[in-house]
Amino acid sequence: MSEKVRAIGIDIGGTNTVVGLVTQSGTCLQEMSFPTRSYKDASSFVAHLADVVGQQISSFPESGDLIGIGIAAPNVNFLSGTIEAPANLEWGAIDLMGMLKRHTDLPMRIINDANAAALGELHFGVAKGVQNFLMITLGTGLGSGIVIDGKILNGAHGLAGELGHSSTDMGVRKCGCGKVGCLETFVSAPGLRRTAIELMARKRWDSDLCRASFENITSQMIAEAAAGGDALALEAFEFTGKILGRKLADFVTYQDPEAIILFGGLVKAGEILFEPIRRYFEASVLPTYRGKVAILESQVPGGRVAVLGAASLFLTSNNSHD
Amino acid sequence: MSEKVRAIGIDIGGTNTVVGLVTQSGTCLQEMSFPTRSYKDASSFVAHLADVVGQQISSFPESGDLIGIGIAAPNVNFLSGTIEAPANLEWGAIDLMGMLKRHTDLPMRIINDANAAALGELHFGVAKGVQNFLMITLGTGLGSGIVIDGKILNGAHGLAGELGHSSTDMGVRKCGCGKVGCLETFVSAPGLRRTAIELMARKRWDSDLCRASFENITSQMIAEAAAGGDALALEAFEFTGKILGRKLADFVTYQDPEAIILFGGLVKAGEILFEPIRRYFEASVLPTYRGKVAILESQVPGGRVAVLGAASLFLTSNNSHD
Repeated sequence: MSEKVRAIGIDIGGTNTVVGLVTQSGTCLQEMSFPTRSYKDASSFVAHLADVVGQQISSFPESGDLIGIGIAAPNVNFLSGTIEAPANLEWGAIDLMGMLKRHTDLPMRIINDANAAALGELHFGVAKGVQNFLMITLGTGLGSGIVIDGKILNGAHGLAGELGHSSTDMGVRKCGCGKVGCLETFVSAPGLRRTAIELMARKRWDSDLCRASFENITSQMIAEAAAGGDALALEAFEFTGKILGRKLADFVTYQDPEAIILFGGLVKAGEILFEPIRRYFEASVLPTYRGKVAILESQVPGGRVAVLGAASLFLTSNNSHD
Repeated sequence: MSEKVRAIGIDIGGTNTVVGLVTQSGTCLQEMSFPTRSYKDASSFVAHLADVVGQQISSFPESGDLIGIGIAAPNVNFLSGTIEAPANLEWGAIDLMGMLKRHTDLPMRIINDANAAALGELHFGVAKGVQNFLMITLGTGLGSGIVIDGKILNGAHGLAGELGHSSTDMGVRKCGCGKVGCLETFVSAPGLRRTAIELMARKRWDSDLCRASFENITSQMIAEAAAGGDALALEAFEFTGKILGRKLADFVTYQDPEAIILFGGLVKAGEILFEPIRRYFEASVLPTYRGKVAILESQVPGGRVAVLGAASLFLTSNNSHD
């Protein structure tokens, strides 16, 4: 395929939806984004999404080379292709791809957002050439994609890679999935916020965060406070790194990956997040793995890893273990 | 290949080593076994093993159809083919296959024992036709083999599937690997014994087990006591099932397998072990998996699952993810 072969990648996030036009080498030629949640129902959302896709197509002169639309969305079941009641959106179970197909004739594929991110890293990012790795996305929730022999692991029920809902034995935090103590109730943007609040309840801190309400505190505020040396914020990252580092050590005994790649809003905190993750990981991993598993930050240009990964469903071949 | 095509399967266990002659349909035509630990060093052991293999070959008239020797051993690194200091044997790191090759010209392959058990189930046992499953062996330790798309997962360092060394947050039991609280310190034959002793320390029980020393108690004794209604023994199985059931629920969120198959001495306890495992698994698994993942007992005829699995390295093709 020539560099002129292009695909549309769509990333439906809890906050924004991004539509990008992607070349075979992983360049995003143009992108448009809009808020995901400002529609009265799923069909209104899809109608607007179809409009945006239409604009992308019409603004692209050589439409003959446009070979398909890849969609990354939360809670996609690989086998059915439907979105199964995502915890962070209020649509219930919908056949989003079926709905979008009423608006365009282009071939279409849909994939779980964390798996799309894994494909983005595999084809265009820091995991280029890495055959076995674990992708973790840290946003409103904790998503994960597992790559084995250069392919996404889907699992027997199309649901592999739900590390966000593995259990911690710490605390009693309720999760959107119905369980208690899931990893993502600690390790995610809202999880970090819950941790900061929990720490406030435990002792007295000299921290600006104590002057903000629970509703107003954001993970970004905590990251900025930590960068400024705020002890409460640093402790919140220490705790987050401890829970994630230990859990990753556990999962390494299972998959034996070459690398673990982290992506998402929380990752922007950089070493404030990575240092404790790596420290707790190395301290609790099976000794034979010490120093052997790289824990890396996503390096996809422009941060559009899921858009590129979704588009890659058409730009590359042989992406998944059926 | 005809039914006359045969391979030798060797299972080097912590207690006994079994050498079997296996047909392509998974029938073990004849087998010999001897204690693994009664040799002064690894070379003496290998010399005796070569003798036994020689006897198997010479007692088999159509040796032209004998196509290879598959070896199942603890702590085999898939990439190097060496045995890396197994916790339950005192050999240190050895190239067992290289040593055995000095005694015979037959083609040879070596595989981790839990992976051999997984292949045995896949080709000849209860997992026939199951493409994604988790194999757990419960003996001196807890071994595991992961099958994805009908192939063994080896991992980036040849060490995938070490669930026995994933962490529990319960207790402070020291593990042979150097860590504390590994799953196999609770879920294995010695783990069950440690649990029984720990329960004795906790309160007064009316149990015959309290009249046996730590050294003398065996997992079989505990299983028999439980079958007879002994409350201490039943509590020990309840605790074992709780830890394993919850851990399996955790790993399911990762692999999304169709089934989990248990094999080994401890499994002979039957429903006394399986009932609490299933109960805690269902209670703690991500709701979408409830009732969907079968937890089954190994059903390989004669219980020689690792011998058959090792032999299958020559009797079947395409067994592993490289």
